[in-house]
Amino acid sequence: MNTEPIQSLIRDIPDFPKPGILFKDITPVLADPAAFRACTTIFRDRYADAKLDAIVAIDARGFLFGAALAHELHVGLVPFRKKGKLPHRSIEVEYELEYGTAVLEMHVDALLPGSRVLIIDDLLATGGTVEATIQLVEQLGADIVECAFLVELGFLEGRKRLGDTPVFAPIVY
Amino acid sequence: MNTEPIQSLIRDIPDFPKPGILFKDITPVLADPAAFRACTTIFRDRYADAKLDAIVAIDARGFLFGAALAHELHVGLVPFRKKGKLPHRSIEVEYELEYGTAVLEMHVDALLPGSRVLIIDDLLATGGTVEATIQLVEQLGADIVECAFLVELGFLEGRKRLGDTPVFAPIVY
Repeated sequence: MNTEPIQSLIRDIPDFPKPGILFKDITPVLADPAAFRACTTIFRDRYADAKLDAIVAIDARGFLFGAALAHELHVGLVPFRKKGKLPHRSIEVEYELEYGTAVLEMHVDALLPGSRVLIIDDLLATGGTVEATIQLVEQLGADIVECAFLVELGFLEGRKRLGDTPVFAPIVY
Repeated sequence: MNTEPIQSLIRDIPDFPKPGILFKDITPVLADPAAFRACTTIFRDRYADAKLDAIVAIDARGFLFGAALAHELHVGLVPFRKKGKLPHRSIEVEYELEYGTAVLEMHVDALLPGSRVLIIDDLLATGGTVEATIQLVEQLGADIVECAFLVELGFLEGRKRLGDTPVFAPIVY
């Protein structure tokens, strides 16, 4: 797995969204068709035989990788959204972000108990968002196969917050 | 083009996000792999020969259809985002929504002048969001091939706000 063509397109933005944070901008990866497809191919190869029932994609950049992967794997897509965006009856969880707090929601009928689920987002930082996602997915009785990210900021140790849940990230800083 | 299998999954949610609005919930379409693929296939067939340089996807449900289509067509994806989410130098536009006002942004280097662009979102309602998107795309000097939506709420006449820009929506209410 050669991630160098992807990694070379990730742009460092100092002091975003606040001073002291070095933001990893993945928009140049999305804008490059070969690089975007390479991301999806990495995930597809990893999960082709995982017998996934659903991909839970985290609002909003997780939608980008989750949608392409769900399409490629012929698997359903479940959006995990910021509060107030889902119209049907939802369960919610409040959690801490690197830059504050937030509430995320999932429809109560989004996942069947026992279904095999992949959680996907663009980047693992401190792990607060995905930790909250794991809570909701488990509340619905689904089984989490793995949490997948294009990029992991290893120095933030977000992985430690996720307990026994397996984590996959092809690019680690 | 038989859209009935897709349409049968779209769920009506009365009084969301405010009283008097009948919200069209597309999450059951996303959750059904065949239906989600059918959406992407409709768009792929329409734009396979359109020589697109980029797909501009509107935050956040537009990301779902835009990402799958960009992957399928081997075209770059440009996210058009709510204010404060894009880290690089951006241009922005404020506009009126059905339920208030908002500001959307696009990176200044997101599109090359003269590039052939498809704008995509899940649903055309009053057209405020896509009208703002068109303004930004034209400000960057790109050419808009068409605006594509899975669903058009025809009775809201959003299409009229978009001037000469061609509009495609396989499902119309």
